[in-house]
Amino acid sequence: MGLLSKVYQQTKTVQYGCMRFMSSFRYEDLQITLTDKPSPKPDNEKLKFGANTSDHMLEVDWTLEHGWGTPHIKPVAPLQIHPAAKVLHYASELFEGMKAYRCIDEKIRMFRPMENMQRMARTAKRTALPDFNQAEFLKCIKKLISIDQEWVPHSQKCSLYVRPTFIGTEPTLGINASNMAKLFVITSPVGPYFPTGMKPVSLLADPQYVRAWPGGCGMYKMGSNYAPTTAIQSIANEKYGCQQVLWLYGEDHQLTEVGTMNLFVFWINELGEEELITPPLETGLILPGVTRKSLLELSRQWDEFKVSEQVITMKRFTKALNEGRVKEVFGAGTACIVCPVSKIVYLGQELNIESNDKESLTQRFYRVINDIHFYRTPHHWMENIEEDVEESIRKYGAQV
Amino acid sequence: MGLLSKVYQQTKTVQYGCMRFMSSFRYEDLQITLTDKPSPKPDNEKLKFGANTSDHMLEVDWTLEHGWGTPHIKPVAPLQIHPAAKVLHYASELFEGMKAYRCIDEKIRMFRPMENMQRMARTAKRTALPDFNQAEFLKCIKKLISIDQEWVPHSQKCSLYVRPTFIGTEPTLGINASNMAKLFVITSPVGPYFPTGMKPVSLLADPQYVRAWPGGCGMYKMGSNYAPTTAIQSIANEKYGCQQVLWLYGEDHQLTEVGTMNLFVFWINELGEEELITPPLETGLILPGVTRKSLLELSRQWDEFKVSEQVITMKRFTKALNEGRVKEVFGAGTACIVCPVSKIVYLGQELNIESNDKESLTQRFYRVINDIHFYRTPHHWMENIEEDVEESIRKYGAQV
Repeated sequence: MGLLSKVYQQTKTVQYGCMRFMSSFRYEDLQITLTDKPSPKPDNEKLKFGANTSDHMLEVDWTLEHGWGTPHIKPVAPLQIHPAAKVLHYASELFEGMKAYRCIDEKIRMFRPMENMQRMARTAKRTALPDFNQAEFLKCIKKLISIDQEWVPHSQKCSLYVRPTFIGTEPTLGINASNMAKLFVITSPVGPYFPTGMKPVSLLADPQYVRAWPGGCGMYKMGSNYAPTTAIQSIANEKYGCQQVLWLYGEDHQLTEVGTMNLFVFWINELGEEELITPPLETGLILPGVTRKSLLELSRQWDEFKVSEQVITMKRFTKALNEGRVKEVFGAGTACIVCPVSKIVYLGQELNIESNDKESLTQRFYRVINDIHFYRTPHHWMENIEEDVEESIRKYGAQV
Repeated sequence: MGLLSKVYQQTKTVQYGCMRFMSSFRYEDLQITLTDKPSPKPDNEKLKFGANTSDHMLEVDWTLEHGWGTPHIKPVAPLQIHPAAKVLHYASELFEGMKAYRCIDEKIRMFRPMENMQRMARTAKRTALPDFNQAEFLKCIKKLISIDQEWVPHSQKCSLYVRPTFIGTEPTLGINASNMAKLFVITSPVGPYFPTGMKPVSLLADPQYVRAWPGGCGMYKMGSNYAPTTAIQSIANEKYGCQQVLWLYGEDHQLTEVGTMNLFVFWINELGEEELITPPLETGLILPGVTRKSLLELSRQWDEFKVSEQVITMKRFTKALNEGRVKEVFGAGTACIVCPVSKIVYLGQELNIESNDKESLTQRFYRVINDIHFYRTPHHWMENIEEDVEESIRKYGAQV
């Protein structure tokens, strides 16, 4: 055991007596076991999304009987999962995706992490997994990043992707709420989504494949939203040469999401107004993305064009395209920030979208958000991992 | 290592050289490691569904690079799963449910197992997991049951539930087809679904909760169909005192499935005909159940009433109920065979269904299928686990 490890072991506070009745685990109970065998850091130039994990992970278990156990930061290792565990059969699982950046002042900051904590708690409820204190969880995550801080790339092109995951581990075969669960967090250094400049993607929009529907779970970040998409993604790639799927919904072919990103259209609308439009949350068909929310907030602050959250049908979209009113289409998400769309394959047609602007809105969003991420533009959305979580919450008013 | 174990070890045939290019694993390569610590068998009177696993499991791994590995029967033990494995994040998983019975002649038989193998292969394709030879897989499963044959209860009320499971294990975070996978089978002795005689259940039919939709995956036995249902199941239990959910679909509130069972209505239809009716497979909204198929085949053979696979809307159903035309409603599935429904809670109303027949159709199905399961009525649907799989396939014409 290394010296740092020993210090941590000594400073841990474990109070088994009261833990059974706790409604959440607590940061102050965090146990830390450091690795004896740190892995070599990958080359920033060769990072592949999600292929490398850092040295440590956070893990905390829950049972219906005893409540939350002690959170533990320890070396990344395979999980021991009983073959009857509900996560392996009934998709009792959910996750979040967030990033930590090494900013220009060498401080490490996360982008609006309480947004992810809140969404995760909502998703847990829908997945019949237990509640937890979001601030306590975030404190543990910040500690994990702090311990693996050398895994946050020394580069303003890269970042550390943070993946909180929550699984039902009860080893019985009935289909019901899991009475055992495991919350864990792994992190992974990731490179730029566009290593050689922003590259537009093409989309397959085929109404026979439906991602989400009213009364379903499309607005939650549950594992079950993803497994059904991979086979369709392969069809888009192999049969149509498209990089992503544009998910349509309903008889009027509403545009909903792009792959795993939210969708934005920048156009001149039917009233002749310049408008940024994105599908609304109210239908329950799309994920409430943190990047989506941020782009809407930014552009409403700019107040340079109309900003709408409204249903967009393929009829409305193709009419605008034919009339030369579509300026830009792009996806928005944690992985890419924004990703321009140049082509949509729809009912045998190829719909081409071309931006002629010197700096497109897509590029502007990319630049502005990137400047925020790396603190070239200081912004209250960024949370220093050494900063007190309660202080952040007071500042940003998040409800926990 | 026990004597039996040694014998098995010696008889195994391993041919690593050609395995990389195999499109399936093979029964003849099966390796067997027997447990040193057999567990005590649970009391047949106290069996709880899915709570006990037998001593051994079957496991075989696949990689995109090397294809299928060697199938292995070994003691049940936790699986080592990397925390980034796709099964834990994106629900890259699917399963089957089937049963083995200790028949009146002491031989152990399975009920139509190739039906499950075929459905599993279809589901694997939809989940972007690899194909396998269904007959080779069934041979390995039969061997597993044979090794754990003392776990097949010595009772004509109980059976051994068999759970083939297939998970994507590639330890990378991108949302795409897993290039590593694990196929495994566990078994679990289970008691009668109705220990004290057939007990009718009540259902919550609330159109705001939707299980499946056209263009989705409702007809595949993927894990992702189940996680979203547990929270709704809890609402049905706790808020409405209903045991199960009746899943409706569409603006006309089509009846689709009951909990995890297929739905049947026995009624006098609008033309005055006695009719057994069940929702059709073509809409893609329901699972093609093996029990469903068997009940349809049996009743078509009987030729005593009309048998239809047709959409049933709540309007059509409540009209029939109000006119006294509904004789019986029941669910059908592997766990219960059939399960009578006595009440449906729908839009604030309580719809009561009462059967006045001396022996209801539900009871008759239960008796007939039970007689087949335990071979009191010999039937070609039952496959002796010692019987050659190819022979069974020739007999029943299954396509593999």
